[in-house]
Amino acid sequence: MSIHNRLEKLRKLMKDRNIDAYIIPTSDPHQSEYISDYYKTREYISGFTGSAGTAVVTMDKAGLWTDARYFLQAEKELANTEFHLYKMGIEGEMSLEEFLLEEVREFGKIGFDGNCFSVSDYKNLSEKMGSRALVYDIDYISQIWADRPDLPKNPVWIFDEKYVGESFESKLKRLRDKMDDLGCDYTFIGAPEDICYLLNIRGGDVEYTPVVLSYLLVSHESVHLCIDRDKLTSDVLKYLDEKRVKIHNYSYITDLMKQIKGKNWIYLDPDRTNVNIYDSINSNVRVKLGLNITSSMKAIKNEIELENQKEAYLIDCASLVKFFNWVKIGTRTGALTELIASKKLHDIRAENETFIDDSFETIAGFAENAAIVHYAPSNLGSKTLGEKGMLLVDSGAHYKQGTTDITRTIALGKLTEEEKNDYTLVLKSFIAIMTAKFKNKTNGERLDMIARYPLWKAGKDFLHSTGHGVGYVLSVHEGPQRIGDKNQVEFVENMTTSIEPGLYIAGKHGIRIENEVYVKEDFVNEFGRFMRFENLTYLPIDTAPINIDMLDMWEIEWLNSYNKKCQELLSPYLDGSDLEYLKESCKEI
Amino acid sequence: MSIHNRLEKLRKLMKDRNIDAYIIPTSDPHQSEYISDYYKTREYISGFTGSAGTAVVTMDKAGLWTDARYFLQAEKELANTEFHLYKMGIEGEMSLEEFLLEEVREFGKIGFDGNCFSVSDYKNLSEKMGSRALVYDIDYISQIWADRPDLPKNPVWIFDEKYVGESFESKLKRLRDKMDDLGCDYTFIGAPEDICYLLNIRGGDVEYTPVVLSYLLVSHESVHLCIDRDKLTSDVLKYLDEKRVKIHNYSYITDLMKQIKGKNWIYLDPDRTNVNIYDSINSNVRVKLGLNITSSMKAIKNEIELENQKEAYLIDCASLVKFFNWVKIGTRTGALTELIASKKLHDIRAENETFIDDSFETIAGFAENAAIVHYAPSNLGSKTLGEKGMLLVDSGAHYKQGTTDITRTIALGKLTEEEKNDYTLVLKSFIAIMTAKFKNKTNGERLDMIARYPLWKAGKDFLHSTGHGVGYVLSVHEGPQRIGDKNQVEFVENMTTSIEPGLYIAGKHGIRIENEVYVKEDFVNEFGRFMRFENLTYLPIDTAPINIDMLDMWEIEWLNSYNKKCQELLSPYLDGSDLEYLKESCKEI
Repeated sequence: MSIHNRLEKLRKLMKDRNIDAYIIPTSDPHQSEYISDYYKTREYISGFTGSAGTAVVTMDKAGLWTDARYFLQAEKELANTEFHLYKMGIEGEMSLEEFLLEEVREFGKIGFDGNCFSVSDYKNLSEKMGSRALVYDIDYISQIWADRPDLPKNPVWIFDEKYVGESFESKLKRLRDKMDDLGCDYTFIGAPEDICYLLNIRGGDVEYTPVVLSYLLVSHESVHLCIDRDKLTSDVLKYLDEKRVKIHNYSYITDLMKQIKGKNWIYLDPDRTNVNIYDSINSNVRVKLGLNITSSMKAIKNEIELENQKEAYLIDCASLVKFFNWVKIGTRTGALTELIASKKLHDIRAENETFIDDSFETIAGFAENAAIVHYAPSNLGSKTLGEKGMLLVDSGAHYKQGTTDITRTIALGKLTEEEKNDYTLVLKSFIAIMTAKFKNKTNGERLDMIARYPLWKAGKDFLHSTGHGVGYVLSVHEGPQRIGDKNQVEFVENMTTSIEPGLYIAGKHGIRIENEVYVKEDFVNEFGRFMRFENLTYLPIDTAPINIDMLDMWEIEWLNSYNKKCQELLSPYLDGSDLEYLKESCKEI
Repeated sequence: MSIHNRLEKLRKLMKDRNIDAYIIPTSDPHQSEYISDYYKTREYISGFTGSAGTAVVTMDKAGLWTDARYFLQAEKELANTEFHLYKMGIEGEMSLEEFLLEEVREFGKIGFDGNCFSVSDYKNLSEKMGSRALVYDIDYISQIWADRPDLPKNPVWIFDEKYVGESFESKLKRLRDKMDDLGCDYTFIGAPEDICYLLNIRGGDVEYTPVVLSYLLVSHESVHLCIDRDKLTSDVLKYLDEKRVKIHNYSYITDLMKQIKGKNWIYLDPDRTNVNIYDSINSNVRVKLGLNITSSMKAIKNEIELENQKEAYLIDCASLVKFFNWVKIGTRTGALTELIASKKLHDIRAENETFIDDSFETIAGFAENAAIVHYAPSNLGSKTLGEKGMLLVDSGAHYKQGTTDITRTIALGKLTEEEKNDYTLVLKSFIAIMTAKFKNKTNGERLDMIARYPLWKAGKDFLHSTGHGVGYVLSVHEGPQRIGDKNQVEFVENMTTSIEPGLYIAGKHGIRIENEVYVKEDFVNEFGRFMRFENLTYLPIDTAPINIDMLDMWEIEWLNSYNKKCQELLSPYLDGSDLEYLKESCKEI
């Protein structure tokens, strides 16, 4: 069915209940970042395949809102549809709320599926919509989507303590202590990453995120897990039984919520609780809103997780050396495309014994394609790699030892002066933040300035964050910390983050360099407690695109010593031409 | 009367009404930063003369809380009293609230004078004190303080439009437009700076701040000014009458507030409205809280104010060149003290035709005294300047053309390597932020990182903000913008700010370099709108203490070109040995 036909069907349904505008967000009942195919309703209605965006359909208009990472991609994918692209974060561009206020009359009706709308989103929208009513019990897409994929049914597995480093009991105790501090009798957890973290289990329900769709309700006496029982093997059932976790059907969560008696306090995360579940809470139960307690817990890694994580990076970086060596050779054949390269990278990684899955869709952008921040090659369009310009590869994987997220941009041949200068600027930005020292509890928006300062000085910028937290065999993007504008979460010891400044010139080239790091104490003196980022990622940084005149001596020294260490650490994992390629890549400049 | 006797008297009064703790903040009924002598109750009770701090007295304890600027000074001044110094912002130190929770029993009473307590402070305290009652109708200090100074009685004067650049009518229109946007019928303004800004008048009620203590109530139809009529000359009365401003007695403000009828909306600033005034509002009047509208207006200077401000700095910097030349000569006599120097600086400035007043108490700290961030020499302790070490002078003045705030640290003779390295670090920090380019609307805490990054990298820091807004012949410290931690106000075109990184080594030396700047557009390109700081202050930066090996080439170039421009701009104002001294100071390195 064409996008046009889907919109026709949707509008017919909207007419029946007098719905003036219908919102289709990118979401599932758990407000996951990556969602299983079953929930890709926004993609179904609009044809836009990016991982973030919201569609709104009125009787005579259709709009799609997405952020800078996806502008170019969305423009391409929406080109022959009725959908108009609204660019988020661009001054003067109409916001989704402004659109609704303009297109929906006073006392009109705005509809959406409450399962896929968080409490926060509902509140924000409701505050802005004035007299317009929000109708949240409508799931139109289910009525239109004939060949909808099935809900996932993948088995749950137990994640050994030798990898996760802390028992369920210990985590549960810390959770309950915090509930005590907050004066709460219950906490509801709707985020699958948090549930998996707490229970030390993993699943396979969500693309790139080894979690199981489920809900958890924790009191000081009991732990209730709502989950599709078909996903539980006898081993897992036994494990959960030993841990005294009570199992219920997935959809039983609303009944459980209803059973909470009045005057009790329940704590829940408005960003990760959907409207329908919130609605099932008795009106005399008192609700405290805040970030999931487990989210703050898992943002700070334990020593065993960090040790494992280091190993995961060595495994992964060795795979990437093999990959880049293969790419360099393959490029000379003139037959290597971005898509073939992406698939090869997956295969090389999958050879590792503890490999679980890719941690997100590989971005392999050659030349001007790299300017599309979250570009992924597909069967429809995949560029052939040539012996000039740069290739940007942003990819990662889940291993038993942890989750990786790495970007390198390499020269495939001759570069322009502009390409070299831009690459060197990004490298300066990268080194500035990698080597920064900062007071304990410095927040993300302050750290972000350190990375952006050299770029701004040259009148350049990138429209994404400098870094994000990385989950441990969970979501590759993990909060609450983030190095970026408007994030005031404080960075403390053992928090992980990516460091990934970039520069994107539409139609020309795109550059990004990304490592993962964690916060470590550097020293304490009369001025306070100074921290630094300890590096986890050891993959040579390409020196070919560097304009050496733009680097200060200390920056050159840092780069040489970093690449030298890469050679030291990765050599044991490589041989033959891969080892030769590594040595070549790590040469001093 | 000794501090001991004052405390005895206070405790006797507290006993009568069963008050467990009495709070004496640094404040007046307008929550002014600098306060007239009449309101210096905290200084009276504790003996601590710093400009910021709060005293709390219980039956058996007395505590004083102040920030890092005043730690050393407070330690000295409280040494022989019962007062214990609590250092704010230091980890592990007991906060005022923690002290009250520990020292005051449940259901106990905490008293203070509601005139000198803002609505915000009241709310914050009340939320934290649980069952403890806040009693705010007690003014004990008035009952103890026999020889209390009089309330000020200085005349109001009209500030000519050729200086302020915008008429009262135009400002009033902008204010009322904003009230419309906010849906408010009234706005109460309790901040004298805001009232003077709006009415284009000035006064002489507050030390270093040429304002008149008064209250203003603005509706869409009327403007009511509550003020001591004795301060109004016939000219000013005529001016206000022409502008249709209704005059009432100073204390009439609570009656005015009571006259506002129910269901009306009133907008007021909780930080600049005292509890007693808030209390006088009828309970069915609806209150909207927020920053005074006029505060956001006056933070952005108009072109005429900026032009005048540039002239004010040339006048002031020429005076400072004369001063430093005099200091250099005077030091050789061995008889020059910090205090004599401070007085001389005042005298040199006062020779200028348009001089009004100093804008704050001059900080002239030699050698280790400079490590006391807000040190001011006094008759009790004033160091003699010697031919080694550094002299830090932070000072400013109000002229008809604007308000200045400048700091320079100069070598008086031989310096240690440590002194030179620290001076050069501060200079690097200063140059980094002075030359930064930043996106429009970058907030203060992000800009702060640019200045702090070079210092943090060396494991050093300063415990004050990098910069503050500067009022135009109003308070030298003006919000809402501030370059510092936890300030998210966005910097926009024509906002002014000081740039003043420093470094303070207790017992050794203190360094600060300070200019004033304003935000100016640099260029707009595909990445956005880039701004920079345009400099207002032209006073040579001493090159004698520089360790040149620590500076990058571009930093040296910036410094030389800055000093060259100082010579160009200040030469016309100087002659004789002052001109020679200027030329010497501006020599290239």
